[in-house]
Amino acid sequence: MEKTHNSQIPTKSSHKNEKEPEIITDKNQMRRWSRAMRSQGKTIGLVPTMGYLHEGHISLIKEAHKLTNLIVVSIYLNPGQFSPTEDLSTYPSDFDGDIQRLMAVPGGVDVVFNPYNLYDYGNSSVAGDGEVEKKGAVSCVEERGLGHETWVRVERLEKGMCGKSRPVFFRGVATVVTKLFNIVEPDVAVFGKKDYQQWRIIQRMVRDLDFSIEVIGSDIVRENDGLAMSSRNVHLSTEERKKALSINRSLSIAKFAAEKGQVNSGELRNMIIQEINEAGGRIDYAECW
Amino acid sequence: MEKTHNSQIPTKSSHKNEKEPEIITDKNQMRRWSRAMRSQGKTIGLVPTMGYLHEGHISLIKEAHKLTNLIVVSIYLNPGQFSPTEDLSTYPSDFDGDIQRLMAVPGGVDVVFNPYNLYDYGNSSVAGDGEVEKKGAVSCVEERGLGHETWVRVERLEKGMCGKSRPVFFRGVATVVTKLFNIVEPDVAVFGKKDYQQWRIIQRMVRDLDFSIEVIGSDIVRENDGLAMSSRNVHLSTEERKKALSINRSLSIAKFAAEKGQVNSGELRNMIIQEINEAGGRIDYAECW
Repeated sequence: MEKTHNSQIPTKSSHKNEKEPEIITDKNQMRRWSRAMRSQGKTIGLVPTMGYLHEGHISLIKEAHKLTNLIVVSIYLNPGQFSPTEDLSTYPSDFDGDIQRLMAVPGGVDVVFNPYNLYDYGNSSVAGDGEVEKKGAVSCVEERGLGHETWVRVERLEKGMCGKSRPVFFRGVATVVTKLFNIVEPDVAVFGKKDYQQWRIIQRMVRDLDFSIEVIGSDIVRENDGLAMSSRNVHLSTEERKKALSINRSLSIAKFAAEKGQVNSGELRNMIIQEINEAGGRIDYAECW
Repeated sequence: MEKTHNSQIPTKSSHKNEKEPEIITDKNQMRRWSRAMRSQGKTIGLVPTMGYLHEGHISLIKEAHKLTNLIVVSIYLNPGQFSPTEDLSTYPSDFDGDIQRLMAVPGGVDVVFNPYNLYDYGNSSVAGDGEVEKKGAVSCVEERGLGHETWVRVERLEKGMCGKSRPVFFRGVATVVTKLFNIVEPDVAVFGKKDYQQWRIIQRMVRDLDFSIEVIGSDIVRENDGLAMSSRNVHLSTEERKKALSINRSLSIAKFAAEKGQVNSGELRNMIIQEINEAGGRIDYAECW
């Protein structure tokens, strides 16, 4: 694994008063920490990530700093949201670099929660851990989960858009976020609006399940050329990265047209599709209301 | 509604030092109470009920008293676990009588949490509250829920047994218990083993979603003649009540046969079915491993 992947964040920071985060891997220790802090009247902000941190993540932490006394960043590559055909095994990671980046954030981060496996329950005393029944959507957890079988479903919002081509994705996200909420017990959790459907699903889930957590959506952070920051961008070749710019460009074109009076959503959608197609992009979905 | 339905529990208790429970209907007030108590170092036990309390419920409260400083009993008829063809509208209730019964419990109950509607989110700022899409299993919440769409599924244990003929039941139970857990934030929750599949589903859910709550299963309490206590027993005619005794009798017969060396589960199952059929009972399912 490479040690530096994003030139925009120095891995060796020159900030003074750098704070080294406490790294917690055990979920019971994590909860004990949160409860001890809460008993001192402190509020806790959670920023859930899958690691390989970039400026987008850092902006979520800065947002959390405005709202709570203490910050927990979770770094956990969640197998529950990947189907076996997706990129769990090639998802980029750089834990040491992530810690350096977190130390450079003004105000720092108090805890990095980095559990090994949130679906390994050890030798559970709960019976029924027999063979896994494989029906319907299957995630990478079914292979590794040692009997995990509880899933949180946000049944309408999880349908459509990204949910169409990634049938286990939002189920996995809602479930792991529930787990993180129950372990970290934060007051505030910050999510990026880059993953807009995900953000809305978490908001809805928090409302519907009566979590006492404020969910904040934080704006997209883009590279200088307009590409939305994403850990997966590291996989793009020079050619693909160039093509990817058509996404932001297509949205700008449609926005401009709408501002100039184009109110036909079908026409706006066609502009988006055309711009991406012309750049050689393959469109999974484009929706415009 | 009748005021006394169970002659075994005096509605006017002669106990001294009777404690009147605080009745809380607002979920935010409920959570504030729990957090205030926890900040004083108190532990909280939750006994979720749908009201019309009988000795079975009381035994759950006594169990909770052994484990925690404070007791919350929730009385909430959960529409989420009833399908539109089930008995939500005729489920018995007697709130005043319930309070009397709770006051007679040694040690009493600290709070009765009696929310009006846990699926009414008011004018939510979360968009997407359009028409309810009706696909798959439908509960009474779909009619009343004002956009509720998040469900907790314990996917293997919810299948089979009661889940076969009640497709929304366990989904509704797991979801409302999640809501109650997030509102009351108890340390311990007590469930009756009469609803054995439900108890196991809650245990599994707590493990899989990392709730920091100890789930206790409490033994069945029976009437003197062997009938398991249940709020719904009030609906039984004299004739039906007599037939219902065949359930316990059939299990005793099978247990006796097993103790005497019958190890063929098919044979044991046949004994159960025969006993109930002979009494004129209609069997939904009988399983024996």
